[in-house]
Amino acid sequence: MSLIVQKFGGTSVGSLDRFKAVAERVVKTHKSGHQVVVVVSAMSGETSRLTSLGAGLSANPSETEMDVLLASGEQVSIALLTIAVKELGVDARSFLGFQIPIITDNSHQKARIERIDCEALKACLNENMVPVIAGFQGITPSGRVSTIGRGGSDTSAVAIAAALGADECQIFTDVPGIYTADPRVVKNARKLDVVGMEEMLEMASLGAKVLHSRAVEFAHKYRVHLRVLSSFIDGAGSLIAYEEEQMEKPEVSSVTYERDEAKLTIVGVPDKPGVALKIFGPVGEANINIDMIVQNVGIDGTTDISFTVKRSDFAEAMNILQLVASEIGSTSQLGSSRESKPLNVVGDDQIAKVTVVGIGMRSHAGVATRMFETFSRNEINIQMISTSEIKVSVVIDETSVDQAVNALHDAFQLENDVGIGTYNGEQG
Amino acid sequence: MSLIVQKFGGTSVGSLDRFKAVAERVVKTHKSGHQVVVVVSAMSGETSRLTSLGAGLSANPSETEMDVLLASGEQVSIALLTIAVKELGVDARSFLGFQIPIITDNSHQKARIERIDCEALKACLNENMVPVIAGFQGITPSGRVSTIGRGGSDTSAVAIAAALGADECQIFTDVPGIYTADPRVVKNARKLDVVGMEEMLEMASLGAKVLHSRAVEFAHKYRVHLRVLSSFIDGAGSLIAYEEEQMEKPEVSSVTYERDEAKLTIVGVPDKPGVALKIFGPVGEANINIDMIVQNVGIDGTTDISFTVKRSDFAEAMNILQLVASEIGSTSQLGSSRESKPLNVVGDDQIAKVTVVGIGMRSHAGVATRMFETFSRNEINIQMISTSEIKVSVVIDETSVDQAVNALHDAFQLENDVGIGTYNGEQG
Repeated sequence: MSLIVQKFGGTSVGSLDRFKAVAERVVKTHKSGHQVVVVVSAMSGETSRLTSLGAGLSANPSETEMDVLLASGEQVSIALLTIAVKELGVDARSFLGFQIPIITDNSHQKARIERIDCEALKACLNENMVPVIAGFQGITPSGRVSTIGRGGSDTSAVAIAAALGADECQIFTDVPGIYTADPRVVKNARKLDVVGMEEMLEMASLGAKVLHSRAVEFAHKYRVHLRVLSSFIDGAGSLIAYEEEQMEKPEVSSVTYERDEAKLTIVGVPDKPGVALKIFGPVGEANINIDMIVQNVGIDGTTDISFTVKRSDFAEAMNILQLVASEIGSTSQLGSSRESKPLNVVGDDQIAKVTVVGIGMRSHAGVATRMFETFSRNEINIQMISTSEIKVSVVIDETSVDQAVNALHDAFQLENDVGIGTYNGEQG
Repeated sequence: MSLIVQKFGGTSVGSLDRFKAVAERVVKTHKSGHQVVVVVSAMSGETSRLTSLGAGLSANPSETEMDVLLASGEQVSIALLTIAVKELGVDARSFLGFQIPIITDNSHQKARIERIDCEALKACLNENMVPVIAGFQGITPSGRVSTIGRGGSDTSAVAIAAALGADECQIFTDVPGIYTADPRVVKNARKLDVVGMEEMLEMASLGAKVLHSRAVEFAHKYRVHLRVLSSFIDGAGSLIAYEEEQMEKPEVSSVTYERDEAKLTIVGVPDKPGVALKIFGPVGEANINIDMIVQNVGIDGTTDISFTVKRSDFAEAMNILQLVASEIGSTSQLGSSRESKPLNVVGDDQIAKVTVVGIGMRSHAGVATRMFETFSRNEINIQMISTSEIKVSVVIDETSVDQAVNALHDAFQLENDVGIGTYNGEQG
C-alpha cells in the first residue's frame, strides 16, 4: 500500500462529466489498495471569472479580499469532487485550507506555505476515507484566507505530499507527460518515461507550463517523487527521477523554446563596479523579471550589457533603461567627454529563446559545438548565448524557432529512446 | 452613534453595479457616524446554480459537502462587497462563518446557530472598520462548514444583531417595506411605517417572503429591532415594533394571502383519542408541512378532519391519507360494520388562504363577523375557517383570491392610515 497524492487542474475538472471522470480515477487508485489524497484546482475559467468581478469593482482591489474571492473557486471544486467520489461508494471528505490547516505567511496573493498540519488528514486516511483538499489556498497565522499565487495547486499538492511523506505526487494535466520537445512543433517528439529532477528544474524555470517551477523546486527541496500524467487518457506519464535513481544520464534529453521574449542592450557601459546594480536595480523594482543576462569584458574600458525579458514587459523595460542610460552617461562625465552623453540603448522584441537540456552535459563535451554547427548549417543567426552546467540557451530571431527546434531535435537524435528528456513550450 | 446591522439579499447584490450601490449605502450610514456591520447573501441565482451542480453529480449529494459548495456563494459576495466599500474610502474586512466564529450545531443544510463570538467583530468596529459577514453559513464544533437553511441570511443578520446588542437590524430587500396587502393585487395598498412584532410573526408564518418567519422569531426572542427597507430606492422602510412601543393597536392592519395551497379531508373518522396522531403522524414523517387543521366535534361518534398543505405536497399527502384511511377503517372493524370499510378521503388542490391580521383584534370584537359579511356580499364561499388571537384565516377557491383581498382591504379601510399593518404574499 502506497500513499499517493493526486492533483487535478482546472481543465481536469472543467465540467460535471470531468468531475465524474476524475472521481473514477481516484476511486480506481483507492480500490487498488492505495491511500489517496486529492488536491484540486478551481474549474477552468472560474479563477478568471472571479478575478474580473474583483477588477470590475476596483482598479486595485484589496489583496486580502481577492484571496477570499479566488479561494471560493477551489471550494466549489472540492465539494463537487467529494460528492462525485462518495457517489461511487468510496467515503471522502473535503478540506479547505483552514481546516487542515495549511498555514502560510501574510503575503496575500503570493503567500508562502509555512506549515501543514497532517493530523486531520491522517485521521481521515486511517478511516479509509479520501481527503479532497482545496489547492492554491491556505490560512495566515491571523486566520485570514490566503492564496499562494504562482504555481498554485501544483505547489499545494507537492507541499502536502512532502508533509505526509507520500510515496508519489501525481500531477494530472491535459498532456500525457513530458516530451523531448513540443509535439506541436516537432512531429517525432517522444514522451519520456523518466526525466531527471535537475533537468526538470531547468525546464520548469525555462517556462514550461506542464509543471510550475515553484512546484518542482518545492519537490526537489523535500525530495518528493513527482509524476506528470494526463487526466484525459490512461498512461504512466513521466516520472521525475532523482539523479542517483537514474540509470542513464543522456547528454541532451530535450529541446525547449520560449517565444514572447524581448532583448535589450545598453551600449558602451563604463566597466566599473556597481554598474550592473544601476541597470538591474530599477528594472527589478518595476517587477520585471529578467531572464538571460550577457556581458562581455570590454577592451576600451566600456562594455555592452544585454538581457532578455518577457515581451509584455519590453516597452516598460526600454523606458527604464533609457532613463538609466542618461543617468550613467551624465554621472560618468568626469571621465572622457564621450561618456558625458546618454548611453545608447537598443532593443528587439521579436526574438525567442531555444534551449537544449541534459543532465549528462556536465560530463560530456561538445554539446554547445554541435548546437552551433546545427544553427550554422541551418543559417540561423545566434544573437546571445547563455549556458549552465546542464543547458545551453541561445537567443534567435522568433521566425526561426520551429526550424531551430526541429533541427536540434534531429541533431541530438531525440526521436530515438537513447536517454531521457523533457518537454517544454507553451501549452494550448 | 448607533450600531446598525445591515443585511443585503441576493437581488440587492445581483450585479457589480448593485454591489457598488450597496457599498454606497453602507458608506453613507458609516459616514453618518454609525457603526455598521454588514451581512450579505450570495448573488441572486448563485445558490441555484451551485445546487444544480451538486444535483448533477448525485441524486442525494452529501449534506456536509453541499454546505461547503453553497457557502462559496456568500464568500464571493463578502469579498466583492468589501472591495467595493474600501474603494469608497472606508476600511472594511470580510468575515467567513469560521472567522467570527458563528458556531452552529451539526445539522448540515439546516443548522441552528448556537453561539456567536463577538470579539473579532468588536475589534474591527473599534478600528472604525466595517465588518462584512457571510450570511447563511457557520461552522460546526468539529470545524465543518455549515449552512443554516431556511431563513438563511436574514436569520444570520438577526443573530449577529442580537449577539452584538445592535440598535437596529436593517433587512434590505427588493420592496420598500411591509404593506397592508400585496401591491400587485391591491392597488391602494399602503406601506406601513410601523408593524407590530406579533403581527409580523403571524405574517411571516403565513408565508411572507419579505422576512422569513425564522428570522422574525429569532428577533422576537432576543428583542432585536428589525426594519425592512428597499435596497433599490431610498426610504425609511417599515419598523417592526414591540407591543409596548406601539402607539396604536389597530383592529386589522393587513390582509395577506397564500396561493398554492391544497386541502384534504378524511370523512367519518371515529371520534376517539389517538386518531389525530394516526392521521398526522405519517404526514409529518413524510416531511409534509401541515398548515391549518380544522375538526368539528361529531354528533354520531364520527367526525370529519380537514387540513391544508402546500399544493406541491398534495399528491403525496393524498396517498398517505388514503393508506391511513384504510387502516383506520380496518382497525375499527370491532365497532359497527360501517366502520370496517376504508374511510372516505377527499381533496382539492385549487384553493387559497386569505388572512386578516391585527394586534388590536384581541381586544375588539367583530373582525370575523365583518370578514364573513364581506365574503357573503361578494358571494365568495368560505371552505374552512381558522383563527388565532390576532388573525382570522379562511380557505376559499383560488380563483377568488384577488377579489377577496381587495374586498377585505376596502372593508377594513386599510388604504387610510388608521393603524399599522403588514404586507404578505408571494414576492416577484
